Amino acid sequence: MVRLNEIRPGETAIEAPPATDAGLVFIGRIHTPWADRLHCPRQGRQDGPTCRIEVFEPWVAALDGITEFERIEVLYWLHQSRRDLVRQSPKNDGIARGAFSLRTPVRPNPIGTQLVTLVHRDGADLLVRGLDCLDGTPLIDLKPDRCLFTPLAPRQPGDDQVGDAA
Amino acid sequence: MVRLNEIRPGETAIEAPPATDAGLVFIGRIHTPWADRLHCPRQGRQDGPTCRIEVFEPWVAALDGITEFERIEVLYWLHQSRRDLVRQSPKNDGIARGAFSLRTPVRPNPIGTQLVTLVHRDGADLLVRGLDCLDGTPLIDLKPDRCLFTPLAPRQPGDDQVGDAA
Repeated sequence: MVRLNEIRPGETAIEAPPATDAGLVFIGRIHTPWADRLHCPRQGRQDGPTCRIEVFEPWVAALDGITEFERIEVLYWLHQSRRDLVRQSPKNDGIARGAFSLRTPVRPNPIGTQLVTLVHRDGADLLVRGLDCLDGTPLIDLKPDRCLFTPLAPRQPGDDQVGDAA
Repeated sequence: MVRLNEIRPGETAIEAPPATDAGLVFIGRIHTPWADRLHCPRQGRQDGPTCRIEVFEPWVAALDGITEFERIEVLYWLHQSRRDLVRQSPKNDGIARGAFSLRTPVRPNPIGTQLVTLVHRDGADLLVRGLDCLDGTPLIDLKPDRCLFTPLAPRQPGDDQVGDAA
């Protein structure tokens, strides 16, 4: 996450259409120990520092039941990232590869996803471990880790569908 | 995904601020066998049907290197979902729980995430297994599965930070 605004040798910037196909609302804010991108971890670790996810009203009621899950998937908006580099050089060595084969914050839609360990719920706040984002990062969504979640709703025909599509 | 537009007994709708904090651009389209929400699987399965993820220009170059990864994380926009139900009743039995403790498509920011098995790349298209979304779902992002990915960029101080924040 060192990149500020440069384009490095070998990288490719594109001119993209305006990002107006869908709109996001920030539903909370993430508090971490990392105030700038030069100090953020490259990847979160489950024994990393406790961070605080603050959920705003009117979405606090959506937390009901979340403490049943030890691991939560967090989606957040990488608000300091440029969005136009389709090929990037993480080592700044002239060798570039596609953004979709990297977990770089520089993406056409800069959304970070992380699995975190839920330590504690304190009202509208969740204390978690495993994050790697900047202090103040906007929150987009929280979901139970798919590995821990069994759908409650009735099954549908697609649930039993295997093999190739007709 | 049976819900069309109803609010069920026990559910709670909120009035949310406008979703204008950030904008998304649809970078592709997902082709699946499921034309309506009554047939979609509740959860994708890795032995499920092969689906096709079509990436639009100018983002095709961002696919460079993606075939190194057997599993890809896919982010997509759940374009038929309402966004205002913070407590939901998946069984329609009067018992509701928070949206963040469900993997329901009805969320404040209706973004789906799924891990898929990459079967084949064919130019701008990826053939994958493991999806559970509607045919025509807009694509938002592709990333290597975090479990398979080792950052290429130099380490940063946060990478070695464990325990509680100061």
